[in-house]
Amino acid sequence: MREPVESGSAGPSGAAELLGLLLDGRPRTRSELAAMSGVSRVTVAARVDALLRADLLRYVGTESSSGGRPPAQVAFNADAGVVLAVDLGATRATVAVTNLAAEVLTVTTEPMDIAQGPERVLDAVLDIADGLLGGMSPASLRGVGIGLPGAIEHTTGRPVSPPIMPGWDRFGVPEYVGRRFAVPVLVDNDVNILALGEHELSWPDVDDLVFVKIATGIGAGIIAGGVLQRGSQGGAGDIGHIWVPYNKDSPWPVEEEHILGDTASGRGIVAQLRSRGIAVAGIDEVVTLVAAGDPVAADVVRQAGREIGEVLAMVVNTLNPRVIVIGGSVARAGEQLLAGIREIVYRRSIPLATQDLQIVQSRAGDQAGVLGAATMVIRDVLTPENIADAVARAS
Amino acid sequence: MREPVESGSAGPSGAAELLGLLLDGRPRTRSELAAMSGVSRVTVAARVDALLRADLLRYVGTESSSGGRPPAQVAFNADAGVVLAVDLGATRATVAVTNLAAEVLTVTTEPMDIAQGPERVLDAVLDIADGLLGGMSPASLRGVGIGLPGAIEHTTGRPVSPPIMPGWDRFGVPEYVGRRFAVPVLVDNDVNILALGEHELSWPDVDDLVFVKIATGIGAGIIAGGVLQRGSQGGAGDIGHIWVPYNKDSPWPVEEEHILGDTASGRGIVAQLRSRGIAVAGIDEVVTLVAAGDPVAADVVRQAGREIGEVLAMVVNTLNPRVIVIGGSVARAGEQLLAGIREIVYRRSIPLATQDLQIVQSRAGDQAGVLGAATMVIRDVLTPENIADAVARAS
Repeated sequence: MREPVESGSAGPSGAAELLGLLLDGRPRTRSELAAMSGVSRVTVAARVDALLRADLLRYVGTESSSGGRPPAQVAFNADAGVVLAVDLGATRATVAVTNLAAEVLTVTTEPMDIAQGPERVLDAVLDIADGLLGGMSPASLRGVGIGLPGAIEHTTGRPVSPPIMPGWDRFGVPEYVGRRFAVPVLVDNDVNILALGEHELSWPDVDDLVFVKIATGIGAGIIAGGVLQRGSQGGAGDIGHIWVPYNKDSPWPVEEEHILGDTASGRGIVAQLRSRGIAVAGIDEVVTLVAAGDPVAADVVRQAGREIGEVLAMVVNTLNPRVIVIGGSVARAGEQLLAGIREIVYRRSIPLATQDLQIVQSRAGDQAGVLGAATMVIRDVLTPENIADAVARAS
Repeated sequence: MREPVESGSAGPSGAAELLGLLLDGRPRTRSELAAMSGVSRVTVAARVDALLRADLLRYVGTESSSGGRPPAQVAFNADAGVVLAVDLGATRATVAVTNLAAEVLTVTTEPMDIAQGPERVLDAVLDIADGLLGGMSPASLRGVGIGLPGAIEHTTGRPVSPPIMPGWDRFGVPEYVGRRFAVPVLVDNDVNILALGEHELSWPDVDDLVFVKIATGIGAGIIAGGVLQRGSQGGAGDIGHIWVPYNKDSPWPVEEEHILGDTASGRGIVAQLRSRGIAVAGIDEVVTLVAAGDPVAADVVRQAGREIGEVLAMVVNTLNPRVIVIGGSVARAGEQLLAGIREIVYRRSIPLATQDLQIVQSRAGDQAGVLGAATMVIRDVLTPENIADAVARAS
């Protein structure tokens, strides 16, 4: 049975399905694609042609020897467009342009005080972006991804009462940025962005991953079933607000009920060192002390790890992740922190949940934020629906 | 541009996409389907014909008045097949046959001691199933879903060291059942099954739901992003093994660190009542005492609710669910239990996470288990891939 199917429906959607097989970046022949997809070579050839026309595929390798035939292999054309990725912290902005494989083409980091409010900060960021995008065709920009250091209502991209971002509450970030760049603008909190970046870069085949950022405060980005989970109001991952279970070995008296973000964060660690007579300016100095073998700093950091472990043990019993990644400035304290976390997680969790669990330090480095912001946009731009639309427009 | 697309590829997959629009059970005209899908009427008509041939759609209403034309509306044919749904508890088995809308066609509950081991129990269950399926065509059975009271490795359907199921460890349930019924056999733990049943029955539009079963033990089924999350080893939702945070109002001394399942379960509640001089035989009697206004029983149940609330507050801050459903035999203690849970969840969670949160009692009743087992099979049977295969076979 053959039935006519029109462009705009099954034709482009078949092409989108084919492109899905190539998003891992590996070049493949038409025969390989036919075998992988279970679709006939004739249909694969038509879909490849449609994707080539839409500039979403490129030929790989030299011309074949048999005369005028096109090269044998095709691959996803990650240079079919660019993404603007912005990672805003409390005191600095990192702005990057990436291709559609989240590879950074150009990047810059500048000091930026988020408390200046959304218009001044975003104006400055977009001016930087203009500079970075300078030589590129405006039409090549496919989207803007922005990470902000506070709770975001993901569906609208609006910050919700972010404590360290005065003036940003309910500000329409996508609309404001959209006036300069008429492309999709996606906004999420910095921790979700970091989770996406770490997942994309280091653990693409892992479906269940928890990224924990330990910096001034503490938060988590949760990937379950391969998907970043934001929860019903965008509040998922707010583990810094969890009340820490009291345990007999805790240095805090029973009476001092507290939330994780108050004691085990960078803020909490600095306060405890000061209360033990060690005047540190900030978390960088703590990291230096730990690296130098200072026993009090090591003890405080390890205890912070234990408190984080108490909360992560509950996360492990609830979600059974395959990987927990520890990131943020405090993570640079390294093994002392991880040892405290591991000690409690393995003690408090059932064997089934920990038998294949890895608890590791973040590998993504300084560019994790922009990498995650780019990944968020790319996963949105390269949905089957959007690919099908692009194919339909090009045919 | 028109391109030929063959049966077995985009033809059936287009039909599968169309059927997806009809799985809510509502009848629709071809014009409505064309508008909903953005596909031309010609293509919609071809897809409807393919789905009618595969018996996945049925006409709704009477013949139209304009002579020989077919009726205007089509709907998903939920009677295109049946599912065998089995809910095994420690001491009883419920076996049902449902249609593809998880509507129970016939059901029976019989006493069954799971400790008899897998072969005797499954033989007995399958004999019951034979009786229920009696008059039906063997070809109409699309799959078997089984809920078991213990941890299950979902990919293989094998129980993993289930404490109350001697002889079941690593037993190949799908293979054993497959010898009697040559259809897909899916197995999951009873709590995940109940979560699916509750989701399907009462909260189909909610993406983030946590179902908590409080019976002899305590466990949770977690739906995040619309999908049941089993975690990396199938261990997600094991909240009964979480160490309960000590708090100042707790009746337990600080020294008595304990897990939730030991104190707030039916088992734990019965033990506490006995230690307070009230000799109850089991949880049914506790429920009766609470209903009769016994102050000690009410106090113990409310305190169990508070302990569950301590753990659920952490789940709320981690996952930000829209709905928490409380089920299991202890849930019949009603408001005393829910009041304890709500008291702590609202005290310990951030406002963003609780502003739209509902904490409710299970509505699904005695048939929740078989309903969930059927739902698990139906969501597997009606994937786009399987629908496309069925369409291709029928064309």
